[in-house]
Amino acid sequence: MIAYFLVMALLVAGTSGVLGQSTGGGVVKYHATINDVKYVYSTAAPVARLKSGDVLETNTLDAFGNAIQKPGDKLSLVKGDNALTGPFYIEGAVVGDTLAVKILDLQVDGNQGVGAIVPGFGALTTTNYTAMLHPALPEKIWFYPIDHTTNAATFKALDSDFSVKIPLHPFFGCIGVAPAGGEARSSIVPAEFGGNMDSPEASVGNTVFFPVNVPGALLYMGDGHAAMGDGEIAGTAIEVPLRARIQVSVIKGKKINWPRFENEDAIMTVGAYRPLDDCLRIAFTELVGWIHQDYGLSEVDTYELLSKVGRIHLNEMVDPNYVIVASVEKKYLPQKK
Amino acid sequence: MIAYFLVMALLVAGTSGVLGQSTGGGVVKYHATINDVKYVYSTAAPVARLKSGDVLETNTLDAFGNAIQKPGDKLSLVKGDNALTGPFYIEGAVVGDTLAVKILDLQVDGNQGVGAIVPGFGALTTTNYTAMLHPALPEKIWFYPIDHTTNAATFKALDSDFSVKIPLHPFFGCIGVAPAGGEARSSIVPAEFGGNMDSPEASVGNTVFFPVNVPGALLYMGDGHAAMGDGEIAGTAIEVPLRARIQVSVIKGKKINWPRFENEDAIMTVGAYRPLDDCLRIAFTELVGWIHQDYGLSEVDTYELLSKVGRIHLNEMVDPNYVIVASVEKKYLPQKK
Amino acid sequence: MIAYFLVMALLVAGTSGVLGQSTGGGVVKYHATINDVKYVYSTAAPVARLKSGDVLETNTLDAFGNAIQKPGDKLSLVKGDNALTGPFYIEGAVVGDTLAVKILDLQVDGNQGVGAIVPGFGALTTTNYTAMLHPALPEKIWFYPIDHTTNAATFKALDSDFSVKIPLHPFFGCIGVAPAGGEARSSIVPAEFGGNMDSPEASVGNTVFFPVNVPGALLYMGDGHAAMGDGEIAGTAIEVPLRARIQVSVIKGKKINWPRFENEDAIMTVGAYRPLDDCLRIAFTELVGWIHQDYGLSEVDTYELLSKVGRIHLNEMVDPNYVIVASVEKKYLPQKK
Amino acid sequence: MIAYFLVMALLVAGTSGVLGQSTGGGVVKYHATINDVKYVYSTAAPVARLKSGDVLETNTLDAFGNAIQKPGDKLSLVKGDNALTGPFYIEGAVVGDTLAVKILDLQVDGNQGVGAIVPGFGALTTTNYTAMLHPALPEKIWFYPIDHTTNAATFKALDSDFSVKIPLHPFFGCIGVAPAGGEARSSIVPAEFGGNMDSPEASVGNTVFFPVNVPGALLYMGDGHAAMGDGEIAGTAIEVPLRARIQVSVIKGKKINWPRFENEDAIMTVGAYRPLDDCLRIAFTELVGWIHQDYGLSEVDTYELLSKVGRIHLNEMVDPNYVIVASVEKKYLPQKK
Repeated sequence: MIAYFLVMALLVAGTSGVLGQSTGGGVVKYHATINDVKYVYSTAAPVARLKSGDVLETNTLDAFGNAIQKPGDKLSLVKGDNALTGPFYIEGAVVGDTLAVKILDLQVDGNQGVGAIVPGFGALTTTNYTAMLHPALPEKIWFYPIDHTTNAATFKALDSDFSVKIPLHPFFGCIGVAPAGGEARSSIVPAEFGGNMDSPEASVGNTVFFPVNVPGALLYMGDGHAAMGDGEIAGTAIEVPLRARIQVSVIKGKKINWPRFENEDAIMTVGAYRPLDDCLRIAFTELVGWIHQDYGLSEVDTYELLSKVGRIHLNEMVDPNYVIVASVEKKYLPQKK
Repeated sequence: MIAYFLVMALLVAGTSGVLGQSTGGGVVKYHATINDVKYVYSTAAPVARLKSGDVLETNTLDAFGNAIQKPGDKLSLVKGDNALTGPFYIEGAVVGDTLAVKILDLQVDGNQGVGAIVPGFGALTTTNYTAMLHPALPEKIWFYPIDHTTNAATFKALDSDFSVKIPLHPFFGCIGVAPAGGEARSSIVPAEFGGNMDSPEASVGNTVFFPVNVPGALLYMGDGHAAMGDGEIAGTAIEVPLRARIQVSVIKGKKINWPRFENEDAIMTVGAYRPLDDCLRIAFTELVGWIHQDYGLSEVDTYELLSKVGRIHLNEMVDPNYVIVASVEKKYLPQKK
Repeated sequence: MIAYFLVMALLVAGTSGVLGQSTGGGVVKYHATINDVKYVYSTAAPVARLKSGDVLETNTLDAFGNAIQKPGDKLSLVKGDNALTGPFYIEGAVVGDTLAVKILDLQVDGNQGVGAIVPGFGALTTTNYTAMLHPALPEKIWFYPIDHTTNAATFKALDSDFSVKIPLHPFFGCIGVAPAGGEARSSIVPAEFGGNMDSPEASVGNTVFFPVNVPGALLYMGDGHAAMGDGEIAGTAIEVPLRARIQVSVIKGKKINWPRFENEDAIMTVGAYRPLDDCLRIAFTELVGWIHQDYGLSEVDTYELLSKVGRIHLNEMVDPNYVIVASVEKKYLPQKK
Repeated sequence: MIAYFLVMALLVAGTSGVLGQSTGGGVVKYHATINDVKYVYSTAAPVARLKSGDVLETNTLDAFGNAIQKPGDKLSLVKGDNALTGPFYIEGAVVGDTLAVKILDLQVDGNQGVGAIVPGFGALTTTNYTAMLHPALPEKIWFYPIDHTTNAATFKALDSDFSVKIPLHPFFGCIGVAPAGGEARSSIVPAEFGGNMDSPEASVGNTVFFPVNVPGALLYMGDGHAAMGDGEIAGTAIEVPLRARIQVSVIKGKKINWPRFENEDAIMTVGAYRPLDDCLRIAFTELVGWIHQDYGLSEVDTYELLSKVGRIHLNEMVDPNYVIVASVEKKYLPQKK
């Protein structure tokens, strides 16, 4: 706790744009504003530096950069999609390592969430990539009052007086690191480096793992979701700013190809591409490989076992790449090697 | 109960090939054997006739026609895939009606299930349709002892001594009716008529709905699964014979396009095609339409609401068409109209 | 020629519904009308019987069963899609053989073709399978006057006075045999049995090969096209009735999995499925196999060579399955074994 | 010609790494070597500056950075895929403009081309994205002697003594500009900015158009192909270094979304994504839009017309995105507005 307060004392003035630095095993605090968010996962200059084992306390703006606040606000107010907090440089992380991010706490920041139909975006409409001759579905915005005492958001229909409460499950829609190979990718893209995975798995109690592609890994996060349906079919979740507490660790010399999740009960792999068929293939070949390598079951036995007990969570089918999480409960696996 | 026993008395000799006929509101019993199964959903001669409201007690052979019984048995023993019990003619069902099938009871018939890698079949291997230059993964068979006292099957690895128990969730891998437009489809195909949906939703407590495409609907079922992972990725579940009790009802003048499921808590729609992207689009446009029509929410409000609370169950990605079930809990919907 | 006239004399009265029978090596004539067309590839009763080597002279109705004749005619007049002439029973053809159909002559029957936007059909619109929330593009019909002296059809814009001539390339949109495994498939489906391939390769000078799935093969044809763009993107070609002269031959003991085409200069394979990715994989694994088997090049050399000289013709992306034809010119291949 | 020689005199010493600058309406010469190639389309420092109208004379290394030269050389010698020459800064090009690149001359540089099976790459094998449990096809390399007198390359089988000549059709496999939105993309990716399109359309006589996404556009090129089959199915063409002469022009105030090609006879649009279905949709909605906007035909008339006369060239199905070029001959279009 002493370390905590020391760091806090050092960092309490850690306003946006000031580079925070951890003294080790401590807590780093960083406050993001619209003036220092990023819209690309790249090797931009870090906003703070963390040591392996540090806890980061920070915040994220919503997917619209908090620009949509009241009825009448239009999407044209939005400066960029999925404003990202970061990047955070994790000391000691080098190419070929794995970065583990344990999500300790996520709180919806404020009393309102936003949903929207963004023209040219969504699973049941013409888009830039599934391009058709139909005019896109027109822009619509829904506001979701959030009740922190009951931990619920309220959907209110636009075309009738129907409303219903939805339990909160806050998670990062975006969390990822700088891509490999000198690439820089938009904050709307999920891929090997993580990014806009829209995975409800990026929530409290889970650890997410990323390949380290550049020195320091360069961690970003944003696009908070208070709750989301599978597939995120209309293109948005209940979009909210978040207050977040996460812990970063570097796993030296361990190389992974795609993001992974893990908690007490399950291991989970991410496939992010198009079509969904290939997402599934990526996620399950990764899961077969993980089990084979770490739990010692043969590939073909693993394949068979997953055909009986594997689980699939189709996260989204609306972003430039689609995302499927494949998982298995640890109770079905051999003892870890 | 009197009606039940009367019908039983009439039908107890209802051996295969004998046409059973319901006396109304009763129970029809039909026993299937390898000699009278079908391998195609078509307008074959019915094996029994049911009235709307009747309960059917019958059985199904496993996906291999019960041909794989002991170590050393080869897939070459199998006469046809997914041996089907039926068809059952439901009196009064005409084109444009909907057939409702309530699944009352399903019991694994016997003490063993079978899993297999069938060369050219599975999500992570070259197949007839995702054709590659690799040789197919070679044939392998796993046997799953079933313990009826603990309601569990046991996976036993082939390449090590690892074993683990898997809870039973029996369901029909195949359930469907004669197709529309004069088509006849293989028992390995899922499509608008249902069929090889490999939907764990086809289990006790759920009602499944089919479009009636021909007089009498002509209901088939088979391919019992004792348990299955999402996606059925290696190509099989724990394949078992079943003893089944179901109730059929005709909903007059109600036309649906694709199969649906319903229970106390949720409504569910089926999309069956390739790629998975199109499965999702089918399932969700059907779900939007169902909610709009029966629950009165506007299409765009429904689309938005499902983006927050909709659920996706990816049933399988191994059959000639893939299958996704989209669903929503009724608690999130307005009062039914 | 004597045989020809003899057969003609025997068969000149071969009106629709009368079962013609070849006397061998001759010509069979069959005239199809709207009263005896089929809408399903199945084991329906044959309309005529041919011997291997016989020439068939027949005709096909257009895709609309000739129902659209003048401005104001609506698609609701159409009784069924792709009215098929047949089936023709080819004597001696048994399961495991290959049926070769050489297309000797195709003539547009009449002075007009039809194009249409059919709601829910087309590559750039919401369909039954790529289902979206947009209303389908509305019905539209174009008439194409056909000039037999210049062998051209004329496109006339609906929304302006622009018109342009299009050279004729008549071909069967539909040609196929009864499916395997007891299936019966709609006349709008292309698959392993051929069918609605919409392949411009089904034209004069080419031979098309089909697997024989039932005794007699049961050959069907229809859906004449006077000209078509690659992909048939709006859902129709210039739809016309045809007069056709074809020659059938049975290749005993040769088994193929998918339809093939061949002419003096090239060999061609068909892949028919969804998505197009899988069409390509089917077509090219078939082409690699054909070359390896019949021309003796190793699989990996063939793969490499096709990567340098292979050709792809994307026939259509609008039917229930999509179709790609892969081909290679024979001049790039070793001497046939 | 005087301007040409003057510029030549100024630039003849334009060795790699030296920033060339055009004096206007002239010729800029730049010689690329392995020491200054790029592997990412980004906003890297330009290697030369061109004015609108300038001719650029340059060269490109082959896809392997010229590292594979003789039997026994392994892919492990390759430093990066698709070594790119550039970027070239085009003065006056600003976001929202279009860059036109006319390809004046392309010559194979040297007497040999290379083809390869790269493990995990190709249309008929397991890849990073269509991931399966099969081991990847093993590495193989073919050398193609090139005869400049007959303009042909020779395929020589590895597993037999078969060989065959293939006519040369040199083109840039890679040509593109810096991406939009701050992204940087690998040289193996084709997308909205062009890049690894593997389009045989990028050849002499054609002009390729790109959206200008950053000041100066930043043009790159590389990955020369001496000849390629449709689909580039095994993953490579006949890979060669090129000597190139191109002319750049800025079209002010014209915004396009995807690359386009044009020549005397045809207009062509590029769709680059996965699956191929979406490539086709992109390419054809772009082509419909182009014709509607520049040639005045209504959208629905254009859709219908392209369904009769449109052409599809499936360029490749092996890169991270697939590529289809849709085209129409100008003779079928109204007078340009």
